[in-house]
Amino acid sequence: MTDTELDRAVIRKIRDSFDRQGLMRHLGARIAEISAGVVTLQLPFRKELTQQHGFFHAGATSAIADSAGGYAGFTLFPENAEVLTTEFKLNLINPARGDLLEATGRVIKAGRTLTICQLDVWGVTGKARTHCATGLQTLIRVQANPPGGADRG
Amino acid sequence: MTDTELDRAVIRKIRDSFDRQGLMRHLGARIAEISAGVVTLQLPFRKELTQQHGFFHAGATSAIADSAGGYAGFTLFPENAEVLTTEFKLNLINPARGDLLEATGRVIKAGRTLTICQLDVWGVTGKARTHCATGLQTLIRVQANPPGGADRG
Amino acid sequence: MTDTELDRAVIRKIRDSFDRQGLMRHLGARIAEISAGVVTLQLPFRKELTQQHGFFHAGATSAIADSAGGYAGFTLFPENAEVLTTEFKLNLINPARGDLLEATGRVIKAGRTLTICQLDVWGVTGKARTHCATGLQTLIRVQANPPGGADRG
Amino acid sequence: MTDTELDRAVIRKIRDSFDRQGLMRHLGARIAEISAGVVTLQLPFRKELTQQHGFFHAGATSAIADSAGGYAGFTLFPENAEVLTTEFKLNLINPARGDLLEATGRVIKAGRTLTICQLDVWGVTGKARTHCATGLQTLIRVQANPPGGADRG
Repeated sequence: MTDTELDRAVIRKIRDSFDRQGLMRHLGARIAEISAGVVTLQLPFRKELTQQHGFFHAGATSAIADSAGGYAGFTLFPENAEVLTTEFKLNLINPARGDLLEATGRVIKAGRTLTICQLDVWGVTGKARTHCATGLQTLIRVQANPPGGADRG
Repeated sequence: MTDTELDRAVIRKIRDSFDRQGLMRHLGARIAEISAGVVTLQLPFRKELTQQHGFFHAGATSAIADSAGGYAGFTLFPENAEVLTTEFKLNLINPARGDLLEATGRVIKAGRTLTICQLDVWGVTGKARTHCATGLQTLIRVQANPPGGADRG
Repeated sequence: MTDTELDRAVIRKIRDSFDRQGLMRHLGARIAEISAGVVTLQLPFRKELTQQHGFFHAGATSAIADSAGGYAGFTLFPENAEVLTTEFKLNLINPARGDLLEATGRVIKAGRTLTICQLDVWGVTGKARTHCATGLQTLIRVQANPPGGADRG
Repeated sequence: MTDTELDRAVIRKIRDSFDRQGLMRHLGARIAEISAGVVTLQLPFRKELTQQHGFFHAGATSAIADSAGGYAGFTLFPENAEVLTTEFKLNLINPARGDLLEATGRVIKAGRTLTICQLDVWGVTGKARTHCATGLQTLIRVQANPPGGADRG
């Protein structure tokens, strides 16, 4: 399924939500692809994103991996549902370097309450891609504007 | 053990390393405490750090949790050793909101090769503290300036 | 809060549930303590529980850690609620050896839907205790005897 | 790469090691496949493996997932190296039921010190396969018969 096959309202909702994520803008992340159950984000290298050795900081890697997974889950949610991350785990398997990082979240199991995503991050330089991180994430679906306020569980 | 009891060279090394983390400066994080096996970082709220509901983004929470844990391990390392995160897992147990986030990394097990830290993040508003996230992190100790370049394992 | 302070019906429910766990009996595990939000299980050493070096197998460590956490959450659930583990993560920080393993699950956050537990396992020989494993677990509360059958999310 | 293509000495080493895992025998697990970087184990259903609802206990699921991953890493290790699990995380995405469980460990990243595996467990009934669990595991390579005794890091 491609962007055009996904309901345009879903894509618009995700783009609107992404634009409200102050952190994504502050880091310089952008949406590369939205399809049913799969979202890819990109993050171009800047020295504002580094750890002490000059590679991308694990926090930058995590931030885009978490958002990619959250929006991947979101593509499969009914209207009026919101998504929250309840937990995630990342293995940092190679140094995160390159012209940009690319993070893909992919739904493995979509449940009524919980959705599980696989998270993968690559460092990209030209055509070369290095697998930097792989992880798992649990999302919880909550009602939009819950009367009692947001709660993670 | 307090800051003054830790070797000043260690504290200086951590502060220098922290200053080289472009992401920490870009987010606005600061070191609140360094002691043997425990490091606490703080991150004041800014809209540049938010997710779509206006709370701190999990990526911001992760970034300071990961750095706090990494430096907690670093306090116990011998000279000429560097630290890399090999993996971490965070449970996001309450919405991350408040005037600032405070992340503490605490060494649970210091090994020759691997060091395990507990990560905890609180949302702080005045004297009120909410436990937002708890996690575990595995660090690997590597030689500084390795001849063959950095490798995560 | 001690056993006597917890509602006897809760303790009985946990003991009944534990007795229905074929694996716990097969491994030889027993309940050591039940209090509100905290459950401790013990597993005496037998060669039927070992890995290739003669220590307790990580699967045995995991089994009692998972059950301890699940029942810790269960102590705080309303009647007619059942518990399922949605995920857990364990760091195996020291070899799991001793006369017995002792696993404690402790509720960190009790939510309407999700409950988060800390899991810790010690190897015990006489009075000596070694911390073998530490972890985090996410439990989901489900209605007992759901009409549509069990579902993990 | 198939069994016959892997060095027979490696296969024999894995079978010998598996036979020394008292827990695998006690649970009734068997090796289904060994190839370079991938090992699959099977565990036929018995009521001695159940949790309180009659499904496979998460401890049984974990035990074979952990062993499958450990041996998957082991296929890629040099002679005289031993493998220890340093941590793993499992998401239990569907009830673990069926005539047997099948667990596959697959190496994602083989490093000098650390090796990362993906773990997947299916419930199998005839030709029907349900994905019950997915996870990640970090293995550490240690020298066989270390002079100072085993240490996890």
